[in-house]
Amino acid sequence: MKMNLSKIIVQKYGGSSVATPEKIKGVALKVKSKVLEGNKMAVVVSAMGKTTDALLKLAGEVASHLTPREIDMLLATGEQAASALLALALNDIGVRSVSRNAFQIGIVTSNNYSNARIVDMNLKRLEEDYKTYDVIVITGFQGITEDGDLTTLGRGGSDTSAVAIAAKAGAVCEIFSDVAGIYTADPNMIKGAKKLDAVTYDEMLELAALGAKVLHSRAVELAKIYDVTLYCGATFSDEKGTFIMKNLPEWLEHPVVTGVTLARNQIKFSLVCVNNGDNALSKLFHALAENFVNVDMISTAMSAKESKEIYITFSVIDTPIGGNSAREVTAKTVRECLGVEPEIEEAVKVSAVGVGMNSASGVAGRYFDALNKCGVEVLGVTTSEIKISVLVRINQAETALRALVDEFDLKQCEE
Amino acid sequence: MKMNLSKIIVQKYGGSSVATPEKIKGVALKVKSKVLEGNKMAVVVSAMGKTTDALLKLAGEVASHLTPREIDMLLATGEQAASALLALALNDIGVRSVSRNAFQIGIVTSNNYSNARIVDMNLKRLEEDYKTYDVIVITGFQGITEDGDLTTLGRGGSDTSAVAIAAKAGAVCEIFSDVAGIYTADPNMIKGAKKLDAVTYDEMLELAALGAKVLHSRAVELAKIYDVTLYCGATFSDEKGTFIMKNLPEWLEHPVVTGVTLARNQIKFSLVCVNNGDNALSKLFHALAENFVNVDMISTAMSAKESKEIYITFSVIDTPIGGNSAREVTAKTVRECLGVEPEIEEAVKVSAVGVGMNSASGVAGRYFDALNKCGVEVLGVTTSEIKISVLVRINQAETALRALVDEFDLKQCEE
Repeated sequence: MKMNLSKIIVQKYGGSSVATPEKIKGVALKVKSKVLEGNKMAVVVSAMGKTTDALLKLAGEVASHLTPREIDMLLATGEQAASALLALALNDIGVRSVSRNAFQIGIVTSNNYSNARIVDMNLKRLEEDYKTYDVIVITGFQGITEDGDLTTLGRGGSDTSAVAIAAKAGAVCEIFSDVAGIYTADPNMIKGAKKLDAVTYDEMLELAALGAKVLHSRAVELAKIYDVTLYCGATFSDEKGTFIMKNLPEWLEHPVVTGVTLARNQIKFSLVCVNNGDNALSKLFHALAENFVNVDMISTAMSAKESKEIYITFSVIDTPIGGNSAREVTAKTVRECLGVEPEIEEAVKVSAVGVGMNSASGVAGRYFDALNKCGVEVLGVTTSEIKISVLVRINQAETALRALVDEFDLKQCEE
Repeated sequence: MKMNLSKIIVQKYGGSSVATPEKIKGVALKVKSKVLEGNKMAVVVSAMGKTTDALLKLAGEVASHLTPREIDMLLATGEQAASALLALALNDIGVRSVSRNAFQIGIVTSNNYSNARIVDMNLKRLEEDYKTYDVIVITGFQGITEDGDLTTLGRGGSDTSAVAIAAKAGAVCEIFSDVAGIYTADPNMIKGAKKLDAVTYDEMLELAALGAKVLHSRAVELAKIYDVTLYCGATFSDEKGTFIMKNLPEWLEHPVVTGVTLARNQIKFSLVCVNNGDNALSKLFHALAENFVNVDMISTAMSAKESKEIYITFSVIDTPIGGNSAREVTAKTVRECLGVEPEIEEAVKVSAVGVGMNSASGVAGRYFDALNKCGVEVLGVTTSEIKISVLVRINQAETALRALVDEFDLKQCEE
């Protein structure tokens, strides 16, 4: 009889969860407890701890120009070793288990090395394996091209592998790491930030800054497309984690704002120029794109005067572009393109996210009131259906965040 | 047009030759020099330095009972990483190169994990690759089963991979390591031992004790079957190495004795018993085999007396058998089987090897004379067509070796 794969549990363990032999044995025990409840499992693992970094360092020591195909061949060994070790640990405690790499499980990807996209997956091997084994340990992060070359999936790759397997099998996907779930705000910054029981895919995508350590947005996008219910929890704790799903369950109280985030490393540019037949905006943002500038927020205002002045504020993410700083490249582009000198200021983006914003009215009012009351100056604004983001000065960022946490009840009840 | 694979050069580099990024770059330069001469190459690599040991240590830390299939999955990562790194280094210095693992090159083996035998190889991929690349870097030591499970080939596995590829392609095979070739005697023991220009497969197999660090006998056996010419040389030296081939070239002076070896760790057992209808020998060696005793030399003599006494001397290799010593297991077996108490003595096997023995007469006479002259007592003798081995006492072993080196001219000429 054919195995119903939708009943399997797909779990993914990140690199820090399998960083040492002791942790691998700990993961094996955690997996065993689910097997003892009668489950068949697919367990996706990342490379142990800092293995990937160590391999990249070696690569840099043998070559200055790195061939992407060979880097993927090299990096893929990390997940294969971790998978074999977990299967060894599982077999050792009496769990019938086997490890499978991308070749064996048939995870077919595009051939853009280091950032490949999964295009197909053949789960026949899994169905076959479950006749003999209870747990199939699968290498995360890697795939093969149609030609049989190894590829890797880029950042968040193992999460993506796990979600893809769950999607194909029609199963749920549990992602385990050092972080116990998704919080209303960064618990390192806001003492008493609440852990959320559940968030929607869209909220999770907007909360990426909070969730980056827990879950890569690419995996969330994939989960959204295939409607895979995700669960994020801590590997070595029984604390309840967070579900990520299409719609929040009925029994859950639906808050207006689910969480607030800070995104640092923003540089704000403000300028005024004459709007030469609406051409200025188009010219500017084309030129920035051509110079590889990563523009984040954009807001503009027109002057009502005859001169048709246009006020442009935009923010740029402060990462190096080639050998230069984003600040230099952007300023030079503005000058060459529009012939004006921009005002430049370092800034932080503060965002509030929540599907509840869709239906609740007055959220923006409460938002700006809260900031105003504590003297935070808003330098720029953008909104989406479920998010309001503002740019603020660096020294006002935490004040802004705390004001929003208080305004939208994002702290745990005092005990 | 189809590529003529018999013109490729197959090279193999051992673990110590690729132990560091610097050494990998050195190997890349060595390979490049051959490519610049217009060659297409297949380069087989072992895992870097002590990688295999480190992986086995990790395995021992996650599990006490090791699943052989998972050990092979784990160990296979070592060669894959080394292959990718060498391909990176080659591409970096402008050599068109790609790495291929056992899946990609189609090295099919039996499924006895950790000691698999190569059963088939599909070189179509190589032919295809040479349209684009000059050097294909291939993972040594590993194969895949018909079911697509990874296997490893056991000790000397990478040598075996290289010879198998050369055999299938009809090409020569160059094995590089820290050792510059095959010597007439262990150069660490005999100052001035000569490096041999060439030896035959059969000599090499008998000289295994000298060649163990250079070349595994399994690879030599395979080379013999498929008549693959082997060359052993040092990775990081231009010194001439040693050819291993079916017949020595005409221009070479054919010495009577090619080399001498010492095999330590022998235990000599001597006993006398009544030959009960020729049954004693058969009973004894069956019983020893059943008890996993590794018997090396056997020599016997019959008494001419009515009592039909039989004198048996045999040597056993001193390795643990289960939890016991070979000495204990063997003595117990002799007692139980024949009801006599053996004399036991630690000994060394001294051998002289040479295809020249086949045709030259008086070699045995010179051999025993040389030992006799310096007072070495011979405790046992065995011979093959190209080898004479004697057992001697431990404290006479080096004297015996030196006597043979002098008798058979195995030293370099004094300068």
